Amino acid sequence: MGLTLDMGNLKGFVKDADLAALQPRLQKAHQDLTDKTGLGNDYLGWTRLPSSIPDTLLDELTALGKTVRAHSDCLVTIGIGGSYLGIRASLEFLRGAGGFPVYYAGHNMSADYHAELLQTLQKKNVTLAVISKSGTTTEPALAFRILKEFMAKKYSGAELQKRIICVTDGKKGALRQIAAQNGYQTYVIPDDVGGRFSVLTPVGLVPLAAAGVDVHALVRGARQAEQDYAVADIAANPCYQYAGCRRLLYQQGKKIEVLASFYDNMVSVNEWWKQLFGESEGKNGQGIFPASLIFSTDLHSMGQLLQDGERNIFETFVSIARVGSALQIPFDAQDLDKFNIVAGKDLDYVNKQGQIATAAAHAEGGVPNMTITLGRSDAEHLGRLYYFFERAVGISGYLSGVNPFDQPGVEAYKKKMFALLGKR
Amino acid sequence: MGLTLDMGNLKGFVKDADLAALQPRLQKAHQDLTDKTGLGNDYLGWTRLPSSIPDTLLDELTALGKTVRAHSDCLVTIGIGGSYLGIRASLEFLRGAGGFPVYYAGHNMSADYHAELLQTLQKKNVTLAVISKSGTTTEPALAFRILKEFMAKKYSGAELQKRIICVTDGKKGALRQIAAQNGYQTYVIPDDVGGRFSVLTPVGLVPLAAAGVDVHALVRGARQAEQDYAVADIAANPCYQYAGCRRLLYQQGKKIEVLASFYDNMVSVNEWWKQLFGESEGKNGQGIFPASLIFSTDLHSMGQLLQDGERNIFETFVSIARVGSALQIPFDAQDLDKFNIVAGKDLDYVNKQGQIATAAAHAEGGVPNMTITLGRSDAEHLGRLYYFFERAVGISGYLSGVNPFDQPGVEAYKKKMFALLGKR
Repeated sequence: MGLTLDMGNLKGFVKDADLAALQPRLQKAHQDLTDKTGLGNDYLGWTRLPSSIPDTLLDELTALGKTVRAHSDCLVTIGIGGSYLGIRASLEFLRGAGGFPVYYAGHNMSADYHAELLQTLQKKNVTLAVISKSGTTTEPALAFRILKEFMAKKYSGAELQKRIICVTDGKKGALRQIAAQNGYQTYVIPDDVGGRFSVLTPVGLVPLAAAGVDVHALVRGARQAEQDYAVADIAANPCYQYAGCRRLLYQQGKKIEVLASFYDNMVSVNEWWKQLFGESEGKNGQGIFPASLIFSTDLHSMGQLLQDGERNIFETFVSIARVGSALQIPFDAQDLDKFNIVAGKDLDYVNKQGQIATAAAHAEGGVPNMTITLGRSDAEHLGRLYYFFERAVGISGYLSGVNPFDQPGVEAYKKKMFALLGKR
Repeated sequence: MGLTLDMGNLKGFVKDADLAALQPRLQKAHQDLTDKTGLGNDYLGWTRLPSSIPDTLLDELTALGKTVRAHSDCLVTIGIGGSYLGIRASLEFLRGAGGFPVYYAGHNMSADYHAELLQTLQKKNVTLAVISKSGTTTEPALAFRILKEFMAKKYSGAELQKRIICVTDGKKGALRQIAAQNGYQTYVIPDDVGGRFSVLTPVGLVPLAAAGVDVHALVRGARQAEQDYAVADIAANPCYQYAGCRRLLYQQGKKIEVLASFYDNMVSVNEWWKQLFGESEGKNGQGIFPASLIFSTDLHSMGQLLQDGERNIFETFVSIARVGSALQIPFDAQDLDKFNIVAGKDLDYVNKQGQIATAAAHAEGGVPNMTITLGRSDAEHLGRLYYFFERAVGISGYLSGVNPFDQPGVEAYKKKMFALLGKR
């Protein structure tokens, strides 16, 4: 089990001395995170979250999952932003975990999407997990209205109650009230953990356990990371190295960070990462623009621009050392495509050569890059990666002088929308 | 049927006079496209492609589709880049067309992905569409080896032959040879149409017809666009207005274009667009970075940065005037979420208010934006949109002085990869 950071392709862009020179500021950022003396210190619950999750809660959620799967054909989760991305990221990274179907709702306001979903659910036994701190966020609130009506037509009484699980504020808010009045089961979202840091709270853990993900392993990986990345010395902490390099690259005019992976199960982890970094750092007229590319698919669309376009980009690759499946490339007697050279090799071998080649070509072309390598595509490594990025953005945000834990800008469109809807 | 462009939210960024002042250069770009006197003029087949597709070919492909669907449970398409994105974009935009399952292969080199795919196909009757001009592009070539072996275990003789369709070069190349030696059915990729412009050639049309998409309607929409956007006068041509505005915004330091949509079926159309624009313009150290966001999902991740981050972004929204499904928001006697204000309204009504609010909020926050509105989410409008963007990138590329029809940069990683693999 492990996570390594390779900075070899930063040569010519980030000098060891520049990184070392960050140490005093980084030390300050580290202390601010540890002592809760920095900006946004009401929302630092995530820093010690993994080690503070009781094993008994994980046991309880694992048991809940068994119950849900026993009486349901599928799970529908209602949520948006941090109440959606981490769940989807985890399930896709783990390739659907045990194969229990999970559907998403309330992450958009598409009538076509939700109408199709209702159609799909018509003949299924459904459990609903509604995830919202307030219960008044437009998208999940409207989806919950629609799905509550659907469920009430299908089930009633205790049968209905056991099929609706609410993950919400411990005391206040519309969803808390709805749950209380209707007797739905509830789990609590801690007050000191913001949405984009919430995947290891019940926000992520309840639906993931319901879907059959090994939440013990997920949290175990995060606990290891919490321990490993608590080291203040940048020379000994890959998480802080990543944060520091981002900062130095941004100061050189690298305004776009591409999180790239040759592993297609990273698609939604990348989306989760975009929220984590974009929402934490994109403020006060500054912040790296986070973009996701999945290779080699996207090499055949964005590869040209990466190689030869504006030199305002850096890349971070996430690689997987050992994939789950073996898949041998067949020998072909005709060899018209000339690929007998790799016949008998595993497809992942070629994929990895593609990754090495791409990282080198991009660096030579003026796109510096780093590579994070995870040992495996399992829950434990995913938990580690989540915490790695969370800790990195906390440090990176403090280095850039912003409050990485607020998101004042997201209110602007809501205000205008509520005005259009006549809502106060 | 229609497509409109709203430039109201460019106010303060693009003046009418600036756009009008582009007319002479635009006129030149227009003539170069029309007379084939500009850079990359060997690859202008797409300009008159819609009007030059014989209806008899569309009839033939429609009949082919019926045959395929009669003897198969699913279609597997093998391809990458332009031989993948347009197919997936179309099927997802049309929400799966008739519901015939289509799987993708050879668009990445993930062993896990392809091993799972083989598992899925084990008990199904399969037709394979292999799409590659040369037959030697690594990803599809390796996937074809793997799937050819799979198919040969399942079928033989005429049964095997009828289940493998090759879309490839008319005369040369490995895939052309493989098809000839094994008696597979073939369709021809024209020489004068590059991969990213190929969705309306057999590259897109064969698999789409096989999956049950109305290819007549798709081409009809593109034909209308070919006619509508052939007007040299920027004042009368929304396609050229889009191209012109992009250029003016880029010159103001707007280095990132976000193609945004409140319609979730745009996900893969956006990916197709990223290739079209990124690969056409990202060269010679310049080019707008194309990024995709699907709202309101991504408002809850990237909304903060869009509102308050670096002011180096502009947005283009794609909206749909009339969606397919009606979905009423239920009334709730308790109204704890306070959304009875929209009870009885359609979900799409709220979605559209969200879009209007977002576009206005972003413009006020320093992110100028345009909105393209399609009448409906059908094949005809999609064909129109494809041609709109193709024509726009041709003009936009010529305005920026690059050859929009080559992609020399994509060779860099391949050379290094072949060296690592020992391939010549």
